[in-house]
Amino acid sequence: MSNQPAGGYNGKLLRVNLSNNTIATETLEEALLRKYLGGAGLIAYFLWKELGQGTDPLGPENKLIFALGPLTGMPLPGSGRNGVGAKSPLTGGIAKSEVGEFWGAELKRAGFDAIIIEGRAKNPVYLWIHDGEAVIKDATHLWGRDTKETQQAIRSELGDDHIRVAMIGPAGEKLVRYACIMNGLYDAAGRGGLGAVMGAKNLKAIAVRGRQPPAAADPGPVGELRKWLAANMNLVKDFVEYGTGAPMEAFEAAGNLPVRNFRDGLFPGISKISAQRIKETISIGMDACFGCPVRCKKVVEVKEPYSVDPAYGGPEYETLAALGSNCGIDDLEALAKGSELCNAYSLDTISAGEVIAFAMECFENGLLNLKDTGGLELRFGNTEAMLKLIEMIARREGIGDLLAEGCARAARSIGKGAEEFAIQVKGLEAGMHEPRVKPGLGLGFMVSPQGADHCTNLHDTMYLGESNWRVKEMAHLGLPGPFPPDDIGPRKVALFRLVQMQRMILDSLVVCIFLPYSYEQLNRVLAAVTGWDTSVNELMRIAERTLTLSRLFNLREGLSAADDKLPSRFFQPKTDGILADKPLDPAKLEKAKRYYYLLMGWDEETGVPRSEKLEELDIP
Amino acid sequence: MSNQPAGGYNGKLLRVNLSNNTIATETLEEALLRKYLGGAGLIAYFLWKELGQGTDPLGPENKLIFALGPLTGMPLPGSGRNGVGAKSPLTGGIAKSEVGEFWGAELKRAGFDAIIIEGRAKNPVYLWIHDGEAVIKDATHLWGRDTKETQQAIRSELGDDHIRVAMIGPAGEKLVRYACIMNGLYDAAGRGGLGAVMGAKNLKAIAVRGRQPPAAADPGPVGELRKWLAANMNLVKDFVEYGTGAPMEAFEAAGNLPVRNFRDGLFPGISKISAQRIKETISIGMDACFGCPVRCKKVVEVKEPYSVDPAYGGPEYETLAALGSNCGIDDLEALAKGSELCNAYSLDTISAGEVIAFAMECFENGLLNLKDTGGLELRFGNTEAMLKLIEMIARREGIGDLLAEGCARAARSIGKGAEEFAIQVKGLEAGMHEPRVKPGLGLGFMVSPQGADHCTNLHDTMYLGESNWRVKEMAHLGLPGPFPPDDIGPRKVALFRLVQMQRMILDSLVVCIFLPYSYEQLNRVLAAVTGWDTSVNELMRIAERTLTLSRLFNLREGLSAADDKLPSRFFQPKTDGILADKPLDPAKLEKAKRYYYLLMGWDEETGVPRSEKLEELDIP
Repeated sequence: MSNQPAGGYNGKLLRVNLSNNTIATETLEEALLRKYLGGAGLIAYFLWKELGQGTDPLGPENKLIFALGPLTGMPLPGSGRNGVGAKSPLTGGIAKSEVGEFWGAELKRAGFDAIIIEGRAKNPVYLWIHDGEAVIKDATHLWGRDTKETQQAIRSELGDDHIRVAMIGPAGEKLVRYACIMNGLYDAAGRGGLGAVMGAKNLKAIAVRGRQPPAAADPGPVGELRKWLAANMNLVKDFVEYGTGAPMEAFEAAGNLPVRNFRDGLFPGISKISAQRIKETISIGMDACFGCPVRCKKVVEVKEPYSVDPAYGGPEYETLAALGSNCGIDDLEALAKGSELCNAYSLDTISAGEVIAFAMECFENGLLNLKDTGGLELRFGNTEAMLKLIEMIARREGIGDLLAEGCARAARSIGKGAEEFAIQVKGLEAGMHEPRVKPGLGLGFMVSPQGADHCTNLHDTMYLGESNWRVKEMAHLGLPGPFPPDDIGPRKVALFRLVQMQRMILDSLVVCIFLPYSYEQLNRVLAAVTGWDTSVNELMRIAERTLTLSRLFNLREGLSAADDKLPSRFFQPKTDGILADKPLDPAKLEKAKRYYYLLMGWDEETGVPRSEKLEELDIP
Repeated sequence: MSNQPAGGYNGKLLRVNLSNNTIATETLEEALLRKYLGGAGLIAYFLWKELGQGTDPLGPENKLIFALGPLTGMPLPGSGRNGVGAKSPLTGGIAKSEVGEFWGAELKRAGFDAIIIEGRAKNPVYLWIHDGEAVIKDATHLWGRDTKETQQAIRSELGDDHIRVAMIGPAGEKLVRYACIMNGLYDAAGRGGLGAVMGAKNLKAIAVRGRQPPAAADPGPVGELRKWLAANMNLVKDFVEYGTGAPMEAFEAAGNLPVRNFRDGLFPGISKISAQRIKETISIGMDACFGCPVRCKKVVEVKEPYSVDPAYGGPEYETLAALGSNCGIDDLEALAKGSELCNAYSLDTISAGEVIAFAMECFENGLLNLKDTGGLELRFGNTEAMLKLIEMIARREGIGDLLAEGCARAARSIGKGAEEFAIQVKGLEAGMHEPRVKPGLGLGFMVSPQGADHCTNLHDTMYLGESNWRVKEMAHLGLPGPFPPDDIGPRKVALFRLVQMQRMILDSLVVCIFLPYSYEQLNRVLAAVTGWDTSVNELMRIAERTLTLSRLFNLREGLSAADDKLPSRFFQPKTDGILADKPLDPAKLEKAKRYYYLLMGWDEETGVPRSEKLEELDIP
């Protein structure tokens, strides 16, 4: 492979086949890049084009795709990320997940925009990519080791502490269906089981190092947007001060906090595990991804009663809720430990927490007993059981082997109505937000190609108040507020669709969803970096194309409109708290789903994209 | 009424009731203006809101609405226009038509943005509006007079030669169903019979004079766009050199020229009546609308064999084709005379020409005879018959009385299969473009709320070639070409919809459709003039809203999906020429229509806007 210039958006794809140890570089055509941009768009494109129907997600035929976007590595906050995708071992549909840290920017500086991993290595390997070169290296000695050990060993043997490593821990190796891929020690491509796909390929890590920063066709607008953010840090002030989870107490008050497997509403212990409490107690600082002044990554240190290594960062909101309130646990140090364990083992904290909460509710209802659990008193609030289960799941020990399958499969195995306690859509455990207070998010849980994904979704309560920048942008786009959180009518569906498309654009560019960039700002930097004459309208069509392609992928794998459904829990009242008398109305959600299909140009009954829409979007 | 400041977009509505001689000024709320902008948008809004179902178009309950837009009167080429609307006496649905000259800008300078005329005056009157004042004045002495006499008389009696006059001639007074309203002597609000509505109200004219130019919140972008056009006059060079009709010979070669009631293809005489020929022969110069450097208005003078008064300008393309090739006539001087007569009488030249062609084909096929026609040999190519018929129609003399009803009604009266020769949709005679070579335009003829309107439509053949600025804009909006003219698949439907929305935006702003402004340029000046934070996406939603409201109006009046159909002629081959073997496929057009409904959020079968779409667009 030749060292190639990294300026502009070159579309260099590295294709690695681990079965036969071949490595090839391909150049993606500009026409393709313009249709799908990068990240989530390219992932959907390649999975649709290259995977056969019925591919075993954990077999060698699945492909694991790492994709950057046109903005990756630019001197712009939020641009250090990368997308990862594959057929999901959890849902059987498309999985895609985005992740921060520096790995994405580093890969760009090494001269590549995407990697497709094919096949399965005979023995554990890792991939070493540096300055336009790629080699497959033995990783037998790394197998079984946690992420910190793995990263250290790789940096040490390659003799460069600046190497960035994307990797799996033991959970990925053990094919836990919700294993994640870690960029460094506290940034996860969390959802959909991509770590298990990596493990199934016997691929322990991808280490990257590059020294050629990408060049923009016109660097001006990149600098302008960077300066704009610097001047508008008030828009992200909660992230700056607390990282994720600043509004946890407000969430509990509003009914958005999942409590005991989404069953309850009140959780007085919330003040003990909030991001504010972390700042006051165990925080030792904040860290950042590539080029980002927001520095939203918590770093915590705990000595007693658990030793928590600050190298593993600190718990995000999703972790605090999933392992915390959703398991009935308000022990902050234990949550910090749980976060560390998940990061060390490469476990998705959301799925892990939701699976543990599921198991706890099964236990409390007699669907699991002490014999099943190997003596663990799996009750809500049992801190030790929660920590123990993380280890058992990651190593597939005892009941951990069952729970490593995810709550949907575990529920089917357990039977006896356990499905009722499995809070998931399509097999993906729900993100830590409450559809009963955010029905637009409920619609998103239903129709998102990945399942109950909170990242590509609307968060209804964020769209309140005329002066809110999000509401202002929607008005600017022709959809003025108000958007009452309890509404799930056509205007909310339209809002959801606009937000979903915006998230898809962010995930294709690939840019952090926490940064308050507008469609127009993103379009301006995209046009500047690539030299393309793009528009917001074109971005929306690109998003529509990728969402439709993802839909086609899922349909090919046997998913259907019947799978676009919420778990029954959301149609029941909570036991207490503000939503005690506000279950969702299934008929309203069904109507919203149909209108969403209609707006997407999909058949209203079946959710199948219409042939006319495919032709219009130029999807072959 | 107080003299009110004309700065910005004040939304001053003048409401005049001619039945009881009341005049009132209303202020339109900014929220309303932002939802409908002006022009066509406001017209649709008021007709939907204020007209009762089944209103007699020629009764006092119909309302005649003149509406400017936020850009009207700005120092910007194309901004001197105004929209006019009412329930159409021709289609029974919504009529709207845009017209140039200076009247619109003058009304803005007089302090008003819109006029709603209600009721019916006992005796002929005219309205005199000047600098914030409005009075109803007697017009008994003007009744029966042609437009030139009317304008002269009004200017003379008000003592100001700079007064701008919108008026009707005898055809409007006689309620010819396709009478137009003339702004001055050669700019017509042509389509849909708005002149008959004015005549039915006994309103001869609206004379305006104002001295307060409107102010923009930020005049910068207006000047920038004006300068951009000055630097890009090459984009409109045909208009500059020839006015409309420069490609007439190419039209004939390509099959786009209507020949003998859309029956034939070849018309060797085309070179005798082309815009080029006019420039070489009878032209005495070009004239312009308010603030426009394009100067596309032909002015011709003929002494023999007809005396054509240059005060009436010269024939546009639509006139040359409608009275010319479509009647089998290649006598340029006669066409100039026909144009003058129509302008003097306030007759829509398109409908007039199409009705005459219809009558000629009826005559040639024995459906009309010499007794019916009062001795006129109504054969294609009979120049004298064409000119005579214009007079007879305008005065409703002899067969002119029947033909004044429009070809759809005349065909029903004649019977014997005459419908086959009536080239109209919903009662509106087709514009002079050929759906068999422009199937996207055919779709537009079908679904346009006004009927077979060529102005709010796609012209497929203009979207050829990657370097074409229109194709570039579509690519920029996410719909890249190519767009083969013979295609009527989903991509063409999407193109039609984008263009239709763009036309609707132009008609709501109100800006000339001949100027090569992009969506983004229009949005920029709109935002600058109003101070609103608008976007292209918002403009598209506004267009969607107005199109949907227009649809609702038509449905209320009994029109349905069954009325969205082309005359059978377009599904037959032409007798000769390039389209001799290329009739349209009705199944393909039907499929395209259904997909258009779907994209609009209307029921695919019935074309009825879905309640969800109405809610989403905030249509009550």
